[in-house]
Amino acid sequence: MAMKRAATSAIRAFSSSSPSSFGSSGSSTRLLHASAESKKIVGVFYKANEYASLNPNFVGSLEGALGIRDWLESQGHQYIVTDDKEGLDSELEKHIPDLHVLITTPFHPAYVTEERIKRAKNLQLLLTAGIGSDHIDLNAAAAAGLTVAEVTGSNVVSVAEDELMRILMLVRNFLPGYHQVINGEWNVAAIAYRAYDLEGKTVGTVGAGRIGRLLLQRLKPFNCNLLYHDRIKMEPELEKQTGAKFEEDLDSMLSKCDIVVINTPLTEKTRGMFDKEKIAKMKKGVLIVNNARGAIMDTQAVVDACSSGQIGGYSGDVWNPQPAPKDHPWRYMPNHAMTPHVSGTTIDGQLRYAAGVKDMLDRYFKGEDFPSQNYIVKEGKLASQYL
Amino acid sequence: MAMKRAATSAIRAFSSSSPSSFGSSGSSTRLLHASAESKKIVGVFYKANEYASLNPNFVGSLEGALGIRDWLESQGHQYIVTDDKEGLDSELEKHIPDLHVLITTPFHPAYVTEERIKRAKNLQLLLTAGIGSDHIDLNAAAAAGLTVAEVTGSNVVSVAEDELMRILMLVRNFLPGYHQVINGEWNVAAIAYRAYDLEGKTVGTVGAGRIGRLLLQRLKPFNCNLLYHDRIKMEPELEKQTGAKFEEDLDSMLSKCDIVVINTPLTEKTRGMFDKEKIAKMKKGVLIVNNARGAIMDTQAVVDACSSGQIGGYSGDVWNPQPAPKDHPWRYMPNHAMTPHVSGTTIDGQLRYAAGVKDMLDRYFKGEDFPSQNYIVKEGKLASQYL
Repeated sequence: MAMKRAATSAIRAFSSSSPSSFGSSGSSTRLLHASAESKKIVGVFYKANEYASLNPNFVGSLEGALGIRDWLESQGHQYIVTDDKEGLDSELEKHIPDLHVLITTPFHPAYVTEERIKRAKNLQLLLTAGIGSDHIDLNAAAAAGLTVAEVTGSNVVSVAEDELMRILMLVRNFLPGYHQVINGEWNVAAIAYRAYDLEGKTVGTVGAGRIGRLLLQRLKPFNCNLLYHDRIKMEPELEKQTGAKFEEDLDSMLSKCDIVVINTPLTEKTRGMFDKEKIAKMKKGVLIVNNARGAIMDTQAVVDACSSGQIGGYSGDVWNPQPAPKDHPWRYMPNHAMTPHVSGTTIDGQLRYAAGVKDMLDRYFKGEDFPSQNYIVKEGKLASQYL
Repeated sequence: MAMKRAATSAIRAFSSSSPSSFGSSGSSTRLLHASAESKKIVGVFYKANEYASLNPNFVGSLEGALGIRDWLESQGHQYIVTDDKEGLDSELEKHIPDLHVLITTPFHPAYVTEERIKRAKNLQLLLTAGIGSDHIDLNAAAAAGLTVAEVTGSNVVSVAEDELMRILMLVRNFLPGYHQVINGEWNVAAIAYRAYDLEGKTVGTVGAGRIGRLLLQRLKPFNCNLLYHDRIKMEPELEKQTGAKFEEDLDSMLSKCDIVVINTPLTEKTRGMFDKEKIAKMKKGVLIVNNARGAIMDTQAVVDACSSGQIGGYSGDVWNPQPAPKDHPWRYMPNHAMTPHVSGTTIDGQLRYAAGVKDMLDRYFKGEDFPSQNYIVKEGKLASQYL
């Protein structure tokens, strides 16, 4: 693994000629390893407070701190964790000038702006505990020669399961029934008039990467008409396994779907992609599930379409921004089934991404490459889907 | 199809010797058909009020009346529908003395007691629009020589889908997140500390009939450890298809399950089956889904176990009695995800059970047998699972 900033400082400090296995700047990481210098690592996680002690596996919280404190400190590294991430007076900001590694999560995202990157003179590595690093200005990170990596695959099952739950909740009109129960009411008709089976409906996923494919596999026994839109067609074997049909043209797919699931990363191409015009191309009463990123949707267009009935139900756990302010309109629009950003931070997911972060830190200390699929920015170069 | 009461009255009225294809009393139904007499048919359905006009396929409502009014009246039959079902002053009660056929549903159950059956001197046929006829005193119906039939299979997919939704909602701790959203809050930790993936968990179904099997098939891609308890072991082919393991001993299965799903009919054997002792045999924090019947559970034992944490979450749509009164304790117990009884009355399910009722009425008028799996009581004899 090579990181340009690390390389520069390491080369300044040492003048080894040990052979490189990482191309032109690779040898520097060996020097880094050889230097065995103490690193300052900062993690930004959501605070658990009274919930911290309720589950010994709650490693994704501030208090759990990924379970790597003893391991890091025993190697002489400094490990600071905080949930205070916004603005120049925040705890995070205090450490920006001298941290080497910043660990963040999509669930309580520390927005790593170009300005922060400029102030972070010692920063070498940005690790995302989870999947989705759009809270980081990737172009700025690349320009600064940084490496950005996430724990690819760590919570894809978690998110796919959650998407299927949300599809079922919308199709079957769960929440109005639940509200009746807690309000002391009983009115089957008020639920049933728009409750359907999932069987026989057309479900399309916008994006069929890891999460989209896991969702399609789980949808298969429901006997739906499954469609997917992606940049690339799946291998025939996988297409057969999921029973999903490729739709090259997104608008054409959208016009056929009873249920649309968003499974695409947030990039400059997908930001605000689902605006008024795009939503108007869908079937009247379409159900939308979005656990990808809130900013893929035009916030107000979703509110308007839920109000008009163009969208029959909207469910997801992602917002723009996060945490969603008290007055975020998605909290109050009709027929929503929203939660805070949790689908990827189940206890099972936390244990996997904590292990993945530890593995990458270990490789970083040793000057080894990460698993290739984890890189979002490697030595200042963006992964292909972000170009 | 033969029905003792019908037989008796028909034999009194006619003295045909037309050959029988239904055994000793079978010829009488041919006489019934030959008589072409006008029948009084009463249906008890939930009222849709303002929701009736919102969906042209809302046939399961009082207003929709299964979509068979024109068909019945064109044949000279009288068809009365009501939602007023309780007590001696109810609309239903007025028609008890002279109705021939009573159509009821599990969603707004008309309780057909021994007393009502005694007062219903002309009653021949009890049809359940849906599945589950435990609101009828089956022994009394059998003693009176009636036939009770339901539309077996009509909404098994609807219920199985709904069960999987409820499993996911409990495992992933959906509702606390939803409550945060609508209350203007954001606290990921308060959700995540007890949110899990379904993958890898042990799910057991108590009963693996039609619904249980459909659930197991839909659970298969989730990579769970699937168990089932039933009176009989599945055929090896189906066991392989679902990947579920047979558990002969119920208590032994219960002690292994992270999630228990109830998929057994309410019979004298299963009434109150899950009492304090049975619930104590489960894992601490077990999640329970029950879309079968409320009376299979000991109501207070469920409340107590949800309060103590022995049950970590309880979700279902069935209550004892229905409609659940405003003060039913399941409305207010912790960690529940309850709805009114709706899972089998999706629009898709309604269309199927309306068609099934029409088919059985048509056969009844023509003196033909019903599909054999539809019978709960045939000519005064209970189906085997109710014996």
